[in-house]
Amino acid sequence: MDHPIDVFRLPALSLLLLLQAMPAAAQDQASWRTLDPAQTVYMQLPGGEVVIELNPQFAPATVSQFKRLVREGFYDGLSFYRVVEGFVAQGGDGSDMGGEPNDVPMLPAEFERPWSDDLAFVSVQKPDMFAPQTGFIDGFAAGRDPESGDVWLTHCPGIVAMARNDEPDTGNTDFYITIGQAPRYLDRNLTIFGRVVDGMDVVQGIIRGPTEANGMIEEGTPRTRIERIVLGADLPAKERKNVQVADTMSEAFAEVLRSRKERGLPFFHHTPPEVLDVCQVPVATRIASD
Amino acid sequence: MDHPIDVFRLPALSLLLLLQAMPAAAQDQASWRTLDPAQTVYMQLPGGEVVIELNPQFAPATVSQFKRLVREGFYDGLSFYRVVEGFVAQGGDGSDMGGEPNDVPMLPAEFERPWSDDLAFVSVQKPDMFAPQTGFIDGFAAGRDPESGDVWLTHCPGIVAMARNDEPDTGNTDFYITIGQAPRYLDRNLTIFGRVVDGMDVVQGIIRGPTEANGMIEEGTPRTRIERIVLGADLPAKERKNVQVADTMSEAFAEVLRSRKERGLPFFHHTPPEVLDVCQVPVATRIASD
Repeated sequence: MDHPIDVFRLPALSLLLLLQAMPAAAQDQASWRTLDPAQTVYMQLPGGEVVIELNPQFAPATVSQFKRLVREGFYDGLSFYRVVEGFVAQGGDGSDMGGEPNDVPMLPAEFERPWSDDLAFVSVQKPDMFAPQTGFIDGFAAGRDPESGDVWLTHCPGIVAMARNDEPDTGNTDFYITIGQAPRYLDRNLTIFGRVVDGMDVVQGIIRGPTEANGMIEEGTPRTRIERIVLGADLPAKERKNVQVADTMSEAFAEVLRSRKERGLPFFHHTPPEVLDVCQVPVATRIASD
Repeated sequence: MDHPIDVFRLPALSLLLLLQAMPAAAQDQASWRTLDPAQTVYMQLPGGEVVIELNPQFAPATVSQFKRLVREGFYDGLSFYRVVEGFVAQGGDGSDMGGEPNDVPMLPAEFERPWSDDLAFVSVQKPDMFAPQTGFIDGFAAGRDPESGDVWLTHCPGIVAMARNDEPDTGNTDFYITIGQAPRYLDRNLTIFGRVVDGMDVVQGIIRGPTEANGMIEEGTPRTRIERIVLGADLPAKERKNVQVADTMSEAFAEVLRSRKERGLPFFHHTPPEVLDVCQVPVATRIASD
């Protein structure tokens, strides 16, 4: 089903505005990028399916180990055991939270990487409150410091990152998904290795833990179970979805950014400042029919 | 049940960090502010109860009409008919979205108000990307322009605001709740008149509409129904919850802000910039036993 997407996600709090928003669906004519099934996982939760794109460009070791674990069925039957409303949903075997240690190798920190001219970077905001510059790289929100030459994935809602202990190289299996306002202060302190491209509503349905226990859900109380995670490439072709995301290097996406920065619609009586929060810019996803 | 609250909502992605976070629960000793039952509504959804604090200080006309509608049972049985994942859940009778017009009076725009020295303002960030200054006023995130003397409630996740058409004074019944990264560009363009203080997980469970239809959910397809909304003051005392929120003018809350700005824990290997996103600072809620 090849349908237009509300890339603008304009307020459209009225029918009038809705109608005004529609013709501007620039992403419709945009080039779309088809996800590589070798870098896409499908996570089945009781509430539905979550599609996650992995990012080996920023987290090669983490992605490689995560895919190995997925293929071994490591996560199947485990659960989200620490879920803080408005913050993160953390899942895995709990080895990272005082459970029995497992024997999976610890991962090196992949918090940032050096800039390289072949990164498909489109600038969004310069400066941003948390970074000298923000932008997108292949649909992933990123921070960049042109002075130091560092570039990193940033903690927008729906990113997938490796949990760890205090030391940088102590993540191995358990991961979290951000489910609230972007905790950007975590940037460059944890390894972001993927992002949810479809099924964020399913993620938002994950059972929360009690606030007084910092979101920890005791065994024996209901937790959202990870029924299974499977690598796209391991699925028979006909069970695989043709998942496409907006090509953030396209002219259509540049137009999305422009129109969001310059709010010219009659709806706006107070003109917003011409700034963009990179975490509030939607990157459209569509499931295309083959 | 008088329990400590994770006001810090620290990463605590590990047991170690969790333990470190615990002794810092400054809000525990904090003064709490008890909600006024006359400014508190309980919204019953199929997934549970949502507690909303109203804000007559910023939106007197809107709050007054909303309470009248609540008391008339206007919303009972209506539904959330436009729900965009990561953006807003909009509910009401749909009159605002091309449905039958209703005869409820249109509301004046209450987008901002003049500064007054009796506002209980605690500063959070100056400047912020979207406002010369941000802060909290009685638990509500606010923007402030000291130069113009304007102050306004800001579109953090969980705010409740009146939908409208293009003209400023065209809202009357239908409202939206923000469910994703703060759409701050809407600030000063819509009337925010409340915020969810409890049950945000229930709000996140509201059924989403299709992206291609800009979140509009056609009649006949499943929508989340508003079973009823009731004013706290209209409930028998024993059905009323003793809802308390962190007193954002307290020294304990000032300490929360300080500790979030200066991330001194050994967990942080890259020191985050000393800035705060007002929408990412949790304001604790607790349901106290009488």
